[in-house]
Amino acid sequence: MVVATQSIQELCINAIRFLSIDGVEKAKSGHPGLPMGAAPMAFVLWDQFMKFNPKNPQWINRDRFVLSAGHGSMLQYSLLHLYGYDSVSIDDIKQFRQWKSKTPGHPENFVTEGIEVTTGPLGQGIANGVGLALAEAHLAAKYNKPDCTLIDHYTYVILGDGCNMEGISGEAASIAGHWGLGKLIALYDDNHISIDGSTDIAFTEDVCKRFEAYGWHVLHVENGNTDLEAIARAIEEAKSVTDKPSMIKVTTTIGYGSPKKANTAGVHGAALGGDEVDATRKNLGWNYEPFEVPQDAYNHFQKAGAKGADLEAQWNETLATYKSKYPTEAAEFETITSGKLPDNWADCLPTYTPEDKALASRKHSEICLNAISKVLPQLVGGSADLTHSNLTQLEISGDFQKGAYENRNIHFGVREHAMGAICNGIALHNTGLIPYGATFLVFTDYMRNSIRLSALSEAQVIWVMTHDSIALGEDGPTHQPIEHVASLRLIPDLLVFRPADGNETSGAYKVAIETKKTPSLMALTRQGLPNLAGSSVEGVAKGGYVVACGFAPEELDLILIGTGSEVSLCVDAAEKLKAEGLKVRVVSMPCVELFDKQSDEYKESVLPKAIKKRVSVEAGTTFGWERFVGDEGVCIGVNTYGASAPGGVVMEKFGFTVDNVVAKAKSILG
Amino acid sequence: MVVATQSIQELCINAIRFLSIDGVEKAKSGHPGLPMGAAPMAFVLWDQFMKFNPKNPQWINRDRFVLSAGHGSMLQYSLLHLYGYDSVSIDDIKQFRQWKSKTPGHPENFVTEGIEVTTGPLGQGIANGVGLALAEAHLAAKYNKPDCTLIDHYTYVILGDGCNMEGISGEAASIAGHWGLGKLIALYDDNHISIDGSTDIAFTEDVCKRFEAYGWHVLHVENGNTDLEAIARAIEEAKSVTDKPSMIKVTTTIGYGSPKKANTAGVHGAALGGDEVDATRKNLGWNYEPFEVPQDAYNHFQKAGAKGADLEAQWNETLATYKSKYPTEAAEFETITSGKLPDNWADCLPTYTPEDKALASRKHSEICLNAISKVLPQLVGGSADLTHSNLTQLEISGDFQKGAYENRNIHFGVREHAMGAICNGIALHNTGLIPYGATFLVFTDYMRNSIRLSALSEAQVIWVMTHDSIALGEDGPTHQPIEHVASLRLIPDLLVFRPADGNETSGAYKVAIETKKTPSLMALTRQGLPNLAGSSVEGVAKGGYVVACGFAPEELDLILIGTGSEVSLCVDAAEKLKAEGLKVRVVSMPCVELFDKQSDEYKESVLPKAIKKRVSVEAGTTFGWERFVGDEGVCIGVNTYGASAPGGVVMEKFGFTVDNVVAKAKSILG
Repeated sequence: MVVATQSIQELCINAIRFLSIDGVEKAKSGHPGLPMGAAPMAFVLWDQFMKFNPKNPQWINRDRFVLSAGHGSMLQYSLLHLYGYDSVSIDDIKQFRQWKSKTPGHPENFVTEGIEVTTGPLGQGIANGVGLALAEAHLAAKYNKPDCTLIDHYTYVILGDGCNMEGISGEAASIAGHWGLGKLIALYDDNHISIDGSTDIAFTEDVCKRFEAYGWHVLHVENGNTDLEAIARAIEEAKSVTDKPSMIKVTTTIGYGSPKKANTAGVHGAALGGDEVDATRKNLGWNYEPFEVPQDAYNHFQKAGAKGADLEAQWNETLATYKSKYPTEAAEFETITSGKLPDNWADCLPTYTPEDKALASRKHSEICLNAISKVLPQLVGGSADLTHSNLTQLEISGDFQKGAYENRNIHFGVREHAMGAICNGIALHNTGLIPYGATFLVFTDYMRNSIRLSALSEAQVIWVMTHDSIALGEDGPTHQPIEHVASLRLIPDLLVFRPADGNETSGAYKVAIETKKTPSLMALTRQGLPNLAGSSVEGVAKGGYVVACGFAPEELDLILIGTGSEVSLCVDAAEKLKAEGLKVRVVSMPCVELFDKQSDEYKESVLPKAIKKRVSVEAGTTFGWERFVGDEGVCIGVNTYGASAPGGVVMEKFGFTVDNVVAKAKSILG
Repeated sequence: MVVATQSIQELCINAIRFLSIDGVEKAKSGHPGLPMGAAPMAFVLWDQFMKFNPKNPQWINRDRFVLSAGHGSMLQYSLLHLYGYDSVSIDDIKQFRQWKSKTPGHPENFVTEGIEVTTGPLGQGIANGVGLALAEAHLAAKYNKPDCTLIDHYTYVILGDGCNMEGISGEAASIAGHWGLGKLIALYDDNHISIDGSTDIAFTEDVCKRFEAYGWHVLHVENGNTDLEAIARAIEEAKSVTDKPSMIKVTTTIGYGSPKKANTAGVHGAALGGDEVDATRKNLGWNYEPFEVPQDAYNHFQKAGAKGADLEAQWNETLATYKSKYPTEAAEFETITSGKLPDNWADCLPTYTPEDKALASRKHSEICLNAISKVLPQLVGGSADLTHSNLTQLEISGDFQKGAYENRNIHFGVREHAMGAICNGIALHNTGLIPYGATFLVFTDYMRNSIRLSALSEAQVIWVMTHDSIALGEDGPTHQPIEHVASLRLIPDLLVFRPADGNETSGAYKVAIETKKTPSLMALTRQGLPNLAGSSVEGVAKGGYVVACGFAPEELDLILIGTGSEVSLCVDAAEKLKAEGLKVRVVSMPCVELFDKQSDEYKESVLPKAIKKRVSVEAGTTFGWERFVGDEGVCIGVNTYGASAPGGVVMEKFGFTVDNVVAKAKSILG
């Protein structure tokens, strides 16, 4: 194919293609195939439909764009650059995949302005898109007025075959169809190629029919390579259907334009190579140098940017009108979207004394969530079909459902992984909503990548994980977390809390709400826990603190370190040891990550280095506790799978008794 | 409803129901609703279709039954007891969910004979079923002869709404449809209730249409409560379609028979309570005491058991014929299914010297897999669409596809979670097949529960995980495992290997193949690794060993402990320190779990307690290394997310250089 003269559309599309090709080629690393094939749909979408202002990437009412097939990141960088985002210069494109560049291998929202969510792990992006669309629907239902529309944007997602094979995308699509999120529009880049070759070898299902089964509005563009009008018509039609999400299958050729590599797996994840780049330039009639963009193309792209600035200006007028007509709602809207918390909001959190009834920490969590929901309207969330086990229902609100998007209780169904990514999407809508998602702690295994991505991509999500140890009892080893608390502590930038009682649960929620850009995970008990005399909200903020001690540091014989349900066990053991004349301190360590951040002085005040006799007690793996107990200490924990029996029996059989703690302590005292 | 006289079928179905009700009631814990509703389909299936011999639960050619909705475990225990399995006596039923009982909260294959796979985490069972059906298809294609059919059984799965909401079931169903596994028959207990209430609140997709989209044969039994003939007809029809898996939607009433609780979430996961049990007895005309089974029912159930013994006897005749006609194939079949390995099989594994070319450990893994495939025909496996990145293709065989089930290379598609559960199913077919499943190490996060279940349920699977650190480079933090090796070490009974070179990779595979009932996970590099002078296959079997040291233990100044790609770095650093007059030992620790199992003497010989100056070096989180480096040691690792840049650059920036190891070592030597 030789293109004699290119229309401005072709010119722009090829500009996207060749920036992507050149970026990958210079890096000698990356995925040129997707950008080359998906450039037409991306161009039509951004050129004719997307509402965005490159000069204010954080404009609240912008359309959201997600490249779920994140390996095609050069597509997104090319778009950002060409449409005039300051975050991606031509030099940034040249630095694709290099140390500290603005253009890393996969799109990262925390690196590059204009990227809404971090993608790469397949299927996450489309599920994030469901969360973004949910956030839009919720805010629109809550704040829009018949005469004043404040929130009204679309969420567009480009996803590939890989995304569609992943279970998380099926979960997310099913619940999106149930909710009828009409402003979610997914463009499926149907290019028949995945890394191993033709999708014929492992992916022959009827994707359109499957999405219809989920309740989606489904369209097909048969020639996504050159039929720009068909793409535009399909997006137009998708926008017109407002009670269902839309999936547009756009059939394309991966690596479009490459004479030798188009429609092969070879173009998926490797640079084309110099000769093939040249051949592709010739084939597509692209007579420009690497990284050169013709001025006509730049001029065209800039028009869209200017249009976006106008749209934002109009929206600002709408906001001004809204403020004058609806000052109460406007004040709430602005408070929420600013991310600022009301002064003294945390006064809503209850505190307890030992006289208060012993409750499970999941129950304390329920009390906290409900208290917070009354002062922070931005709190929304729910459970993966365990609402009454996780205790996550907000009394103040009804259920988020089709036609009731203003409600705040979300039923995710038995879809932990999608729940995770949807919560991330809600948080990364960046309009102040604070989502929470709940399941049994053991099922963090079903959603671990989403939890990791919440931490990596700075999404403030609260993960409410109940039934946090073998003490859950009869459900047995498949449901009893052993290694989970430790494994979650391994995830960088995730705060993992295991509160010991009511005060500590309140303390955990205080930190979780106040720590922006950081997810927090609550590991909560099924069983009741006594309220401790020494526990405190303030202690939790330091991660670890002395919860029981009547002795000066230099007098101490022993330190017991516990978390969650085992802190009261430590306190009881300390009493018994004290009765035998030993001087014992009990340290509660509800959040190891926060303790690690304290000053050396504070750490020394809690865990004096000179006191080498230390016992850790946690109903989970001992792995990692060596760091705190040191060479002369001992760890009490569970390093095998649990067992099915009543919770009290299991705890006793596994050694979580005062007598065993006392015995282990004595064993190291010699 | 009052039942005046019960047919023998009704009697048997009610016997299943009431054993389940009574078991849950006595435990005051469990899930009566599913067994009450699914008893008719289970009875029809076991009574008229299932091929099994209760006196030999391990008969190779038995039909496999999986209760994917594992919370309904009492259904399975009732069936096993009533059909005469010795593993579940009436006293065992009375001990439901008690300490050390044969009837734990969820079905556990390693506790109760007759249970094929451990279920409970939703969706795993149906995906295990795909693995079981794959194993059947593979063995049948490989060993059956036109005149002698050795392997010919069905795999039946009962799954519920929860299983169908989980993404893993969608992944598994999609690939099962692609493969056309005609002898997989799933009965979907469509009871409209999940824990949170009606499925209307979160699950309104068209499940039948979705399965049709996957390429399944789909049937619907509208009245699964009483229309036993319709159930039987549907199973008959499902069996008759041999080129597609079948999904039979069986609409039932959860808690059928309970006047007040049927069709409510209240009967899902809690005992009925005494009054409601009485009312249900009355309602279903069940005039028997708790745990009493009428003799007529026992007699009927026993007939099916006797039939199974006959079937096995016939099959043994077939096997005898097969042996005489096809002695070569029979010998192979018997060797494989016995689980015994040929003598000296491990001679196929290569060894290396420093003169051999530096290769990535993923490449060494490829060499091992191909070598093993030639001497062990039971090795089957593949990748989740990363075959040529994970390097898992077996040259000896073609691809496992519809019509080519004899082949050993499995393309799972981008479906890590289903891959995990399918591999578990293949291993738990218990016919000697050794499956392997591969992806990038970071995506163990997508399949963590399946990996956990491989360890819990004693499935010998080899998990081949490549791109094992930030050294993978440009793909950046979403693809760079930081916490993964440590988090996998936390899983009880999983062997995690991080080999340093060719010899250690061979050593890891030797252990993985020879350790029955135990999964092994390989963490393998993308980048090349020099072959070390001191590495050995034998060393790996001990988990940790001295790989470089010219000094007696008492002389040592320092111990460097490394794993995988960092061992050679330790060796180089040791050389440099030696040049400065320091006496340094290097310990390679390819498998922490195996090292932990060694004698105290051996451990002391490797890591003498007196040598307190220790440095661990691993390109991952330092969490957990404190155990080995102790109070005076230091850990070199990565405790933040990685970065996108060429691998060598990333490694250098994160401190994986000889100079940094040397500097850190000196810092503790003072």
